[in-house]
Amino acid sequence: MISVILAGGSGERFWPLSRESHPKQLLNIAGEKTLIQQTVERLLPLTPIDRIYIITNEQHAFQTLSQLTPYGFSPDHLIAEPVGRNTAPAVALAAELFKDQPDEIMAVFPADHVISDPDTFHATLGQAEAAARQDYLVTLGVKPTRAETGYGYILKGGALDKLDNAFQVGQFTEKPDRETAEHFLKQKKYYWNCGIFTWKVSAVRAELEEHAPKVIKPLANIESHLQSAKGKFPFRVFNDQGKKIFESLPSISIDYAVMEPSKNAAVVPTTMPWNDVGAWSALDGISKTDGDGNVLSKNVYQVDCTGTLVKADGRLIGAVGLRDMIVVDTPDALLICPKDRAQDVKQLVAELKEKQRPQIKLHTTVQKPWGCYTTLEQRDGYLVKRIEVLPGESLSLQSHQHRAEHWLVVSGKAEVECDDKKMILKAPETTVIPKGAKHRLANPGKELLILIETQLGDILDENDIKRYTDLYGRA
Amino acid sequence: MISVILAGGSGERFWPLSRESHPKQLLNIAGEKTLIQQTVERLLPLTPIDRIYIITNEQHAFQTLSQLTPYGFSPDHLIAEPVGRNTAPAVALAAELFKDQPDEIMAVFPADHVISDPDTFHATLGQAEAAARQDYLVTLGVKPTRAETGYGYILKGGALDKLDNAFQVGQFTEKPDRETAEHFLKQKKYYWNCGIFTWKVSAVRAELEEHAPKVIKPLANIESHLQSAKGKFPFRVFNDQGKKIFESLPSISIDYAVMEPSKNAAVVPTTMPWNDVGAWSALDGISKTDGDGNVLSKNVYQVDCTGTLVKADGRLIGAVGLRDMIVVDTPDALLICPKDRAQDVKQLVAELKEKQRPQIKLHTTVQKPWGCYTTLEQRDGYLVKRIEVLPGESLSLQSHQHRAEHWLVVSGKAEVECDDKKMILKAPETTVIPKGAKHRLANPGKELLILIETQLGDILDENDIKRYTDLYGRA
Repeated sequence: MISVILAGGSGERFWPLSRESHPKQLLNIAGEKTLIQQTVERLLPLTPIDRIYIITNEQHAFQTLSQLTPYGFSPDHLIAEPVGRNTAPAVALAAELFKDQPDEIMAVFPADHVISDPDTFHATLGQAEAAARQDYLVTLGVKPTRAETGYGYILKGGALDKLDNAFQVGQFTEKPDRETAEHFLKQKKYYWNCGIFTWKVSAVRAELEEHAPKVIKPLANIESHLQSAKGKFPFRVFNDQGKKIFESLPSISIDYAVMEPSKNAAVVPTTMPWNDVGAWSALDGISKTDGDGNVLSKNVYQVDCTGTLVKADGRLIGAVGLRDMIVVDTPDALLICPKDRAQDVKQLVAELKEKQRPQIKLHTTVQKPWGCYTTLEQRDGYLVKRIEVLPGESLSLQSHQHRAEHWLVVSGKAEVECDDKKMILKAPETTVIPKGAKHRLANPGKELLILIETQLGDILDENDIKRYTDLYGRA
Repeated sequence: MISVILAGGSGERFWPLSRESHPKQLLNIAGEKTLIQQTVERLLPLTPIDRIYIITNEQHAFQTLSQLTPYGFSPDHLIAEPVGRNTAPAVALAAELFKDQPDEIMAVFPADHVISDPDTFHATLGQAEAAARQDYLVTLGVKPTRAETGYGYILKGGALDKLDNAFQVGQFTEKPDRETAEHFLKQKKYYWNCGIFTWKVSAVRAELEEHAPKVIKPLANIESHLQSAKGKFPFRVFNDQGKKIFESLPSISIDYAVMEPSKNAAVVPTTMPWNDVGAWSALDGISKTDGDGNVLSKNVYQVDCTGTLVKADGRLIGAVGLRDMIVVDTPDALLICPKDRAQDVKQLVAELKEKQRPQIKLHTTVQKPWGCYTTLEQRDGYLVKRIEVLPGESLSLQSHQHRAEHWLVVSGKAEVECDDKKMILKAPETTVIPKGAKHRLANPGKELLILIETQLGDILDENDIKRYTDLYGRA
């Protein structure tokens, strides 16, 4: 079996912890591991790491790889879409890439859901795989535990011959109204559509060709338009022609494109505890609470709070008398919201986008292939950053038109190249990179390199950079 | 008339904006000016600045002076108590200092209340002054607008002869229960005790000697134990003997010590809008709200909030669906609390004190007589600060046992003395102060000097300082 993880998150619902550069699947909001790490770990007993593929977008490729490297995940199993086009084009892309293995079973998983009972999950997937071998397009149906109006529902039809726990799909229903959802819950033959699918490569290709030719036909030779990203992490990217093709695809879901029109759709019902982690309030079902139903980070001090989630990033938070509130604190942005309004965080994020607030895009700590940097302070004329370079990594050879940079090593060893000089610096040594100088910073040591950079100039902008050579193909 | 402002605030109720180092009267929570600035401005039409005195404690002296210098306030009109001993010792101290002017009228004001109608305030004080000239101990009684259980009440007795709007005091009542407070409100002859008093120096001394000899007798020669603080800001401090005397005084209020037992107490009722700004919720009566009753700082984005106060320090705050909440954000600490629980901030602060959280004492920006510093980041082995030195000011000549300091000028001109070297630095020049070096930083220019200091060492502690000479008498 091939597992394909769809990691196309946009980073809106878990703002301010999620950002455009850092969507939900890359967050550790439901345990120590991030959601995508949990997704991979859940699959490993079924699929070895070299049979797992991830479709994500270019912006998140480095971070995704850095989170999955510890599992032995190979960069060339990550395919970076040039733009998000919903699930049907992503599935079609995977199906095209594996078309020389038509009988192979391909299973598709969202990267950012929580399933807290792996045994039931594995058993259910086994049943789905068996049905897929009979050429069905199989979807997992999760037994509802409440009259949820935010999910799609699947009506279970007749049992399928010679298969264990597999049924025809009677009907798909998009997000129902409250009354319908309550009816579904009582009926006991409706299941939540949880976005996990299993099918033969040949079967899903055939169905896509029949029901969604606009999605799959342009991808016919797509493999020839994929190439390895330049540099140290050769994930797979589209060339210009490939980008054009992918961008031309309609943005539609696999449910709508194939599952609904298909005559071969099957559902495998399951009682596995599934949570799509759709909003901050969804953490209620996942996190460990104190005696009063609170989930509180370290450094939160409270008086008489109940049912409250406070996620803090180290700052001291004093909470008095809160009831069922959500507080999420990050160095540059804070969210406060009652749990029953968690869905409306979207509305807030829409406004922040419209007003072009930078807190929508980046965190103060920005992950880079070589490590990360953190903005400590920006004021007129200067900007102070902490820069952390991982052992063996290197920033690009670069220059800046509008700023000089002053570097002070506070920990580790720095290899600095500046025009024709080369030097090794240790704490508390410093150097100045003049405006316009071609320079490079690397960590030749075995410890983390930490330096305090102070930029000086009239224009202090990340875009003021000219790259000459780069380990990660960004030049 | 002499005005004495009692500025003994402890900085608890308005945490996290107030800190032990930065109590309520020094905050601009009710307008552009700080509360003590507003108090002084309110008095100026009645008392020239050279007839205004302030009693505060040593810790707050520099900041109080720096806030009042623009009004021409003279440092020697500030008397710094070595410890807080409530209002009776402070009043007795003032009365002793002015005992050679026995017929002078002395008025006493809290530093941290808001009175939004200065005309009525001035008219009321005129009536109080007239009564004081007849040897009464006069207290202002504010007409209640609600059945407040948090204030003391004064029962108005018979009208006093030949005086306009002055009455005998029938009775003082400490904070009443709800039922009593409602009765008082209906009765229309009870008034709030707002802590503003007017009396002849001779009268208050006589009453103190009669009813509170333990408070005033030890202060008989206190003037001989006061001296000018050393350095550039010669406010008045106690010598060691004076400190012992003051510390030995009982901690009691002037109401309890004198007003209640006195047979000469009078009340001047007033309708002036008075607010003791006792808790965050008290800002409701003072601040301008938007159409939904919200008071929101810049950089607050909200969806569907009502009656909510968000005080932010520049970080982006997203508030969704909040009802009657208080949110106060500072760089190192955040408070969230429903308005009707604002009194319980005290409980939170008590816990933070017990746990010795530094956020109780100092802000990340710490005011100093020479300017201020702001901690940008502290991590293992290093600490990054922004240091701002005012034109013409200078830090002490000092050394540190455990740390080296690295200075980078980002704005203005620095005069640096380090062992036997002297130099002038401008942006982006740097210097390193080695461990143990005797050094001094000064601003010889006319612009603000800003530098980024990175401290390096195993122990990074404000107490690791040896001062040799200091402009402000701190050596």
